[in-house]
Amino acid sequence: MKIAVLLTDDFQDDEYVKPVEAFKKAGHEIINLELKRGRVVKGKKGVVSVTIDESITRVYVEDFDALLIPGGYSPDKLRINDDVVKFVKDFFESGKPVFVICHGQQLLINADVLKGKKITGYRSIIQDLKNAGAEFIDAEVVVDNNLVSSRQPKDLPAFIKACLNKLKSI
Amino acid sequence: MKIAVLLTDDFQDDEYVKPVEAFKKAGHEIINLELKRGRVVKGKKGVVSVTIDESITRVYVEDFDALLIPGGYSPDKLRINDDVVKFVKDFFESGKPVFVICHGQQLLINADVLKGKKITGYRSIIQDLKNAGAEFIDAEVVVDNNLVSSRQPKDLPAFIKACLNKLKSI
Repeated sequence: MKIAVLLTDDFQDDEYVKPVEAFKKAGHEIINLELKRGRVVKGKKGVVSVTIDESITRVYVEDFDALLIPGGYSPDKLRINDDVVKFVKDFFESGKPVFVICHGQQLLINADVLKGKKITGYRSIIQDLKNAGAEFIDAEVVVDNNLVSSRQPKDLPAFIKACLNKLKSI
Repeated sequence: MKIAVLLTDDFQDDEYVKPVEAFKKAGHEIINLELKRGRVVKGKKGVVSVTIDESITRVYVEDFDALLIPGGYSPDKLRINDDVVKFVKDFFESGKPVFVICHGQQLLINADVLKGKKITGYRSIIQDLKNAGAEFIDAEVVVDNNLVSSRQPKDLPAFIKACLNKLKSI
């Protein structure tokens, strides 16, 4: 399956590397999306670099089977762009799996898709998630229909397992 | 007057340096607060270092005349701590001036003090401010009673002017 990964500078390194490794190992294809094809974006630890495969303005939701949004400060940087928020909103509303961890959830707040949704996320954004109408659950992973969410890097094993299960189910 | 400045690592450099310079020049005293006295915290550009004067758990709202919260990623880091959020809430509710810029507003969201308040802030958090019950206004500076807010570094001249005016009025 084709999995879009949405990221820009200052993403949380492990929240990109570990799910992507696991998805590739399971035979899935990864397409890294940001605004500019060919850009090299860096993780916030300054170690991991990722080359953007395609501009988010040049792709369609139909091109992908699932969407992964790693955390760090990348989501807060991305959500100032209306094209990015629109893509995330359309993707979520298509019913295809959306995987978010840590601060990745911030993009779903701006996409205004969280009313009544069960979700978890990083401690700092709990109030923002509740204010967006979501039901916050303090657990290592929360699955609500197409939405799989986790809180932080240490939840990655449970997060990855739940994401792979979701991919198997579609 | 005594002005508390609340910050930790990855604060937006100019949003600390420029107001603090202006406040000192006007004769005010600056007390840098974080969780640990003596810690040296760094701006996100990696240039400015600030030594913390006192732990926020050892001071009282009554010790200060106003509170400044610079932006950057510092506010998101600080708002995971309940003592910090409680201090901000108590300070805001005391009616003393609170100056926030960029992402500083995130601490006011977690302090749950924004219902019905007129405010501006950085683009990425507009939805979070609205969801918190605030009335978002897209202007270089917004003053609503004790609350003075701005959007970003380029608003600093207007922000500083409004802060100094507010200090003169009390």
